[in-house]
Amino acid sequence: MDLLFLGTSSGTPTRARNVTALALLEDTGKSWYLIDCGEGTQHRLLRTPLSLHDLRAICITHVHGDHCYGLPGLLASAGMMGRKAALTIIAPQGIETWVRATLEMSQSWLGYDLDFHAVESLGEWRNLNMRIEATALSHRVPCYGYSFTEARPDPRLDIDRLERDGVPRGPLWGQLARGFDVEHEGRKLRSDDYLSFSRAPQRIVIGGDNDRPELLADACRGAQLLVHEATYTEAVANDARNDFGHSTAASVARFAQTVGLPNLVLTHFSARYQKNAGRGHSIDDLYAEASALYAGKLLLAEDFMRLHLGKDGQLTPVEPPRPRPSR
Amino acid sequence: MDLLFLGTSSGTPTRARNVTALALLEDTGKSWYLIDCGEGTQHRLLRTPLSLHDLRAICITHVHGDHCYGLPGLLASAGMMGRKAALTIIAPQGIETWVRATLEMSQSWLGYDLDFHAVESLGEWRNLNMRIEATALSHRVPCYGYSFTEARPDPRLDIDRLERDGVPRGPLWGQLARGFDVEHEGRKLRSDDYLSFSRAPQRIVIGGDNDRPELLADACRGAQLLVHEATYTEAVANDARNDFGHSTAASVARFAQTVGLPNLVLTHFSARYQKNAGRGHSIDDLYAEASALYAGKLLLAEDFMRLHLGKDGQLTPVEPPRPRPSR
Repeated sequence: MDLLFLGTSSGTPTRARNVTALALLEDTGKSWYLIDCGEGTQHRLLRTPLSLHDLRAICITHVHGDHCYGLPGLLASAGMMGRKAALTIIAPQGIETWVRATLEMSQSWLGYDLDFHAVESLGEWRNLNMRIEATALSHRVPCYGYSFTEARPDPRLDIDRLERDGVPRGPLWGQLARGFDVEHEGRKLRSDDYLSFSRAPQRIVIGGDNDRPELLADACRGAQLLVHEATYTEAVANDARNDFGHSTAASVARFAQTVGLPNLVLTHFSARYQKNAGRGHSIDDLYAEASALYAGKLLLAEDFMRLHLGKDGQLTPVEPPRPRPSR
Repeated sequence: MDLLFLGTSSGTPTRARNVTALALLEDTGKSWYLIDCGEGTQHRLLRTPLSLHDLRAICITHVHGDHCYGLPGLLASAGMMGRKAALTIIAPQGIETWVRATLEMSQSWLGYDLDFHAVESLGEWRNLNMRIEATALSHRVPCYGYSFTEARPDPRLDIDRLERDGVPRGPLWGQLARGFDVEHEGRKLRSDDYLSFSRAPQRIVIGGDNDRPELLADACRGAQLLVHEATYTEAVANDARNDFGHSTAASVARFAQTVGLPNLVLTHFSARYQKNAGRGHSIDDLYAEASALYAGKLLLAEDFMRLHLGKDGQLTPVEPPRPRPSR
């Protein structure tokens, strides 16, 4: 799986960082998933190879504007570009009401269906390649983290069982191998019964806004990577004037170290942290604070940064985090 | 007055053009006005010298998303930046309901008041420096153009009358000169009664989406400049597959020529028109079509283009249309 960061600032955009959005790409093809959709997400997408036609699902962590105000514009643009396939949106219930009211107010008629799932009662959502689960977090409003798990890692057909059950070699085998259940001579054959998986699935956990990283302990079991907000350093967070409801670089690093996560990416930085800060707050302060407490692979997200999580669990940058130039 | 174009694309953003937004700046200071607020307008503002603290009013032409989806994010960011002064919003009534519902849904509490005026019953809005009036246009939904007129062009105190009325030289004269009504010895003195204006006011008319430019004939009387959408060339508009409700470069140019407007700026171009288009549609096609029919000063808007309308009625570029580089 790949991650492509589309927005890594908390609250308001800066000139270098947009508000929150993150794309997760399947290894198996062009399909991708969007986690959060701050204002201007569709503009960020124009500078990536991702197409709104290949978007399989959108997951929204919570109702704050910097995580969802880009949703109506992105949905409308997908419609204007001719999308016809229904689009899954997993989000707090208030989001569905608001999105439908917004499209109605602006008289935007999409040419495709919105298939909303309330995150409050999600259980799990899955398609042939991906399984999505949600975890309740701790923030000023109800907020959720999302786990993305490969549904069928390197599937292998159980040839012995197919022959034993008299399933004829040919198209049926292909269907079963690709994850589809089939009918044969009146019997229903379940793909799951004829497949085995040769390795543990890849699993990425994406936190929302959250001041208690330890709530993700169960979700992180078997995960190779956690992406989590680290809005402040401890020094700034201890200043009473700051927003509550967020994590520090230290608190996330401490959690990741405790549960033995191999890879950690921090994001959602307060706009006060700048690159090459003079006398102000530096983005390097966040890295220094986290790296002192965490021994795994640690990265700080930037807009347009793309990362590949290999089947060996190694996390590597795919290309330099540079947008293509404007036309 | 100056104009600073923040978005000049119709419907969807491109990498070079955002969806509609336009800033109008007073000559008298930092105060400015925003006409339409498509998604990503606040991001465009980060690359200009304009501050949300100095924004005096927002005028929305109609409810389509590419003209208003940026409103909640811009309002929330103004709040996070500490704005305290009430903000005037002139817009179709549905916009107020939607903005208030959106802020409520996302639990965004602004630290300032929103002072909504329904454009349907506007009459006029004015402060000391500017008078705003609306004109109903013709589009797929109710849509309005806005006229901005200097309220007090180069005011001069009527000294004779002040002395005749026994108003003592000093602070009272200063108040009256700056446009404030005052009280003196129990009498109310109206600034308007003691001021004369040495020239005709500047007047800029900004159209919304509109397929009948002639509806702006009255508004354009005494105006030095019209900004109007020209979504298509005639050739493309005649193609039955295209949206109705828009003007062509030719229809706007013909109208501006008929009413004798000295300056015309076209904007809101379909994304199909590109700069340096190879075999596709070129932005030059729009210019060629309009300039063949219009003898005044003609410009095609670009994002970040800034224009100055002088007191002599001349329209001149202020600086090259280039954003500052990202940090």
